[in-house]
Amino acid sequence: MNQNLEEKLRELGYELPTPPAAVGNYVPVVRTGNLLVTSGQLPFVGREIVFAGKLGAELHEQQGADAAKICVVNALAQLKSAIGDLRNITQIVRLEGYVHSADGFQNQPQVLNGASELLVELFGDAGRHTRVALGIHEMPLNAAVQISLWAEVA
Amino acid sequence: MNQNLEEKLRELGYELPTPPAAVGNYVPVVRTGNLLVTSGQLPFVGREIVFAGKLGAELHEQQGADAAKICVVNALAQLKSAIGDLRNITQIVRLEGYVHSADGFQNQPQVLNGASELLVELFGDAGRHTRVALGIHEMPLNAAVQISLWAEVA
Amino acid sequence: MNQNLEEKLRELGYELPTPPAAVGNYVPVVRTGNLLVTSGQLPFVGREIVFAGKLGAELHEQQGADAAKICVVNALAQLKSAIGDLRNITQIVRLEGYVHSADGFQNQPQVLNGASELLVELFGDAGRHTRVALGIHEMPLNAAVQISLWAEVA
Repeated sequence: MNQNLEEKLRELGYELPTPPAAVGNYVPVVRTGNLLVTSGQLPFVGREIVFAGKLGAELHEQQGADAAKICVVNALAQLKSAIGDLRNITQIVRLEGYVHSADGFQNQPQVLNGASELLVELFGDAGRHTRVALGIHEMPLNAAVQISLWAEVA
Repeated sequence: MNQNLEEKLRELGYELPTPPAAVGNYVPVVRTGNLLVTSGQLPFVGREIVFAGKLGAELHEQQGADAAKICVVNALAQLKSAIGDLRNITQIVRLEGYVHSADGFQNQPQVLNGASELLVELFGDAGRHTRVALGIHEMPLNAAVQISLWAEVA
Repeated sequence: MNQNLEEKLRELGYELPTPPAAVGNYVPVVRTGNLLVTSGQLPFVGREIVFAGKLGAELHEQQGADAAKICVVNALAQLKSAIGDLRNITQIVRLEGYVHSADGFQNQPQVLNGASELLVELFGDAGRHTRVALGIHEMPLNAAVQISLWAEVA
């Protein structure tokens, strides 16, 4: 946990972005006690949704997995904006994974596994989180995935 | 935050109702530590669901927005029943917005924005919450919207 | 609350199983402060999903209700693995009930009521929880129901 987590993320191929703005009249992250919760994060790169459509129709599983990782990186950027340094996170508590799914697509776990792994690679045991994985009918901005994180800080 | 929040709500056109009963064997609100969480609130006025159907089919966006505001008002009534005075709320932590959506309807954020704004108008900065917005396939009682609130108390 | 809760569960016809493994790179339960949260639990008995399909299509309401109870029993097994004795639970805070629903199926509350009742029968007032009930489009492993529990410990 001593290494700079953003360097580690860079080695894994990701750069913490400027945290994406909220798509409405709400805020991207709130702290209550030792808990932080993010709003649902979409696969934004800059101002563009880079994976739009439904898994099992316009998008295949690997694209969904890439979208999920981008959502998690955006969630980490939101958490950092709230606490300054990601090393203040003592536990990733929960990942809520909402996967935009065409009729019959049931590989939500596979879409989310890379995102879950990314958290464990970054945070070690503190990255081992609980998860809910759902196949969602319709999604804001036609996004492929939406992810919300709950994290504990010291 | 000194004004009576129910008066303010009245000026905005809403009256805190008798909190709706649960639709099953559960309770409408639970407190744990400084957190309150409500059950999913439906657009009940009295015992009637006033907006039933799917957004993008039977209902248009403005009707969905009205439904969302009613859900939030019902959630506030539940919170009040638990803590006596809404001024004890120090932060609205999270709004989970579930929008009953027909194929292709993706304006969940627009449906929820009025509800989010209502919270900010009422509570000021303490009303600025995180949000998850999902397009849901089927909804209990065919309700147009379901909203759950998480709030922090002192 | 003094009776052994597992005996009580046995009288109700259920046996706490070995907690099911996670379906991916995450953990089944995390504790943060006095809160425990489980991952979404599926109707596993051993390594088999015993209720697969959509409510309102392949499955009728009673099958969904049975699936929901199995999910809750699995969630209790996860909670026990984290805290040793279910009597350490002071409150079931929240049940998130995701019901795999065919077009037009809106009896999610009926599917979940038996699961909610089971918690109240086991824990008494401490089992009275908040609930979110949603009709979900597609589900991992084609499971009929997915349930996540939040619980408070002393």
